[in-house]
Amino acid sequence: MPPETLVVGQSGGPTPVINSSLAGLLTGARGQFPRVLGLRHGIEGALEDRTVDLSDTSDADLAALRRTPAAALGSCRHKLTPDEYERVLQTFEHHNVRWFCYTGGNDSMDTCARLAQLAKDRGYLLCVYGVPKTIDNDLVGTDHCPGYGSAARYWAICAQEVTRDLDAMQTYDRVLILECAGRNAGWLTAATAILRKDERDAPHVLLLPEVPFEKGDFLLRVEASLSQTGYCVVATAETIRDTEGKFVTQSVGGVDRFGHPIVTAVGETLAQLIGRELGVKARANKPGTLQRTSMAYASLVDADEAFRAGHEAAGRLAAGDSGKMVTLIRRESGPYSCDLGSVPLAEVANSERRLPPSFLGDGGADVTEVFRAYAAPLIGPAPEPFYRLA
Amino acid sequence: MPPETLVVGQSGGPTPVINSSLAGLLTGARGQFPRVLGLRHGIEGALEDRTVDLSDTSDADLAALRRTPAAALGSCRHKLTPDEYERVLQTFEHHNVRWFCYTGGNDSMDTCARLAQLAKDRGYLLCVYGVPKTIDNDLVGTDHCPGYGSAARYWAICAQEVTRDLDAMQTYDRVLILECAGRNAGWLTAATAILRKDERDAPHVLLLPEVPFEKGDFLLRVEASLSQTGYCVVATAETIRDTEGKFVTQSVGGVDRFGHPIVTAVGETLAQLIGRELGVKARANKPGTLQRTSMAYASLVDADEAFRAGHEAAGRLAAGDSGKMVTLIRRESGPYSCDLGSVPLAEVANSERRLPPSFLGDGGADVTEVFRAYAAPLIGPAPEPFYRLA
Repeated sequence: MPPETLVVGQSGGPTPVINSSLAGLLTGARGQFPRVLGLRHGIEGALEDRTVDLSDTSDADLAALRRTPAAALGSCRHKLTPDEYERVLQTFEHHNVRWFCYTGGNDSMDTCARLAQLAKDRGYLLCVYGVPKTIDNDLVGTDHCPGYGSAARYWAICAQEVTRDLDAMQTYDRVLILECAGRNAGWLTAATAILRKDERDAPHVLLLPEVPFEKGDFLLRVEASLSQTGYCVVATAETIRDTEGKFVTQSVGGVDRFGHPIVTAVGETLAQLIGRELGVKARANKPGTLQRTSMAYASLVDADEAFRAGHEAAGRLAAGDSGKMVTLIRRESGPYSCDLGSVPLAEVANSERRLPPSFLGDGGADVTEVFRAYAAPLIGPAPEPFYRLA
Repeated sequence: MPPETLVVGQSGGPTPVINSSLAGLLTGARGQFPRVLGLRHGIEGALEDRTVDLSDTSDADLAALRRTPAAALGSCRHKLTPDEYERVLQTFEHHNVRWFCYTGGNDSMDTCARLAQLAKDRGYLLCVYGVPKTIDNDLVGTDHCPGYGSAARYWAICAQEVTRDLDAMQTYDRVLILECAGRNAGWLTAATAILRKDERDAPHVLLLPEVPFEKGDFLLRVEASLSQTGYCVVATAETIRDTEGKFVTQSVGGVDRFGHPIVTAVGETLAQLIGRELGVKARANKPGTLQRTSMAYASLVDADEAFRAGHEAAGRLAAGDSGKMVTLIRRESGPYSCDLGSVPLAEVANSERRLPPSFLGDGGADVTEVFRAYAAPLIGPAPEPFYRLA
């Protein structure tokens, strides 16, 4: 019989700090569990019995983990079938797994919840804990998600950097589209506004997935920014939909020379729309996975909270707690800080938190100061201000 | 009559360090010139007589300039007509301009050369100096260009960061395209290979503008990488052309529902090609202007050299030298360092330096160790290595 084992896994789209959570978890697990195994590529590693022994991870490796983007154990996007849940449990029994910690988003918390239920139904003793992770910040039950602060910092700073660029190039380039991730929620798109100081700073037009895209209104706003500021930065979610609910990216409706539909990205679609309708040259930046991998923009606050969340999960599992996800609870007064708490997995699983009404201003065309006050501490200290001619 | 005046301007696409060159220039100009004026938006500022007095720029502003991306004075992309050259000279006479320093690329050096010639023809005493600037690194006469080291560092590090991401996500996402700037030269695309340590690291496929794109060969290379490594990062220049000389980005040939041609970016075009032909999901990252504005990835070596180049131009103008561009001359032995030199403007104007044959390996499908040894010092110290499972 193998020793009683804690198994850990990483799931879903990586963040700059998911490995910080792993480092926190392994640090907290020291001396608490007879053995620690890592799943290769999340729950797929349980299906295929691909594991790696992490019991003796060195301090040097823990330090290296904290500066490494993506998911060091490998991640996955796999929805288990009922049969596969059984196989996962068999693998766990085979390795004498008594504790399972999964770092991921709402799909992963659903996986955790179902696995915990199945173990209970089978009379197999298993403690399960989730650690929140997503740049999209769309998990319920927590003030915010580890991963969001770093990707938000990426967009908050990059938006001001490209503002300087457009200000410099405005006699040639006048419109820039920034295409942000975030699934159905506008948290990352909204983050472009965190460091905006006045009307010259980006973003000048915000397109959030919470608000239907209306072409005429959009073009009017771009024109207004061009006449007031001389240039226009549009921050758009990659998932905006028109008033009929169709993704804007698909509404181009063209076909290539082989008859295959051409899908242009949202940013490119909007840039071409502006060129056609307003006769103004527009560019689009679509950093794609760079917004979730860039360590140079990672938030120290976020990295610290991610580490603490992993550490907390190890402590709670060691104490026999189960069926919950670690949460961040913002203190109500004093300088920004968060306590750690927990929420039942079932409350997180498959739910989605979008921008609440109090964070949306100007009829959904902007974010409010309430949002900026919420988000600013998460990105850590702002860089020193840029030089700007008086 | 106004005091004798040095006028300075910034031109072309910004870089993370063009303001460092301005800071160096203003530092070197102190006590050397009765007055220093800055042109708003480069040579367009001379046409429209839009200037700003920089004579008393404070130390705090010089420090702020060095951390600010883009071009603080404003930049432009304007090709002067013969009449406009006359008007620029009239503006210079009006302000008693006796020294002109322009930071830019090869088009800007052409502007400098013509203006110097016109002043000479008119018997107007004017000293002209150029300071090299371009992320594209395509200027002749200098070992490399200020601006390149920073954008190269962006790509060198980002390529390894996305490798970690793709390694983690390979059971779901297996191909990523990185779309790099660089006009007709592959310097930035090649920079993705600077920190590659073994065959698992990106880039696995390089598409350089110096080498015609051949679809069948490209797909074979992607397939080989997928079977050897499990995933594939393609680094492509945004300007690759097929064997008929057509831009790959335009060869899709579709039209939208209004009958307008749809132009998809190269990365998107290649991603869709891979999806169709290999049945493998592919994504494309197109950071666009972010690769030239990102201060978080700026190279300290590059920023220092940019400052020194601006400083040198001020000194040479004060000494009465004219008609040249500052150059960087790499020392032939010892640890990496550069001396400053100069080259006649006419030799730089409108010439373009592409990757030389010694930098191209594997039939143009990769770069050589000779290139990596050339480029590695320009990005400054490499970050500490990432964690990777054994």
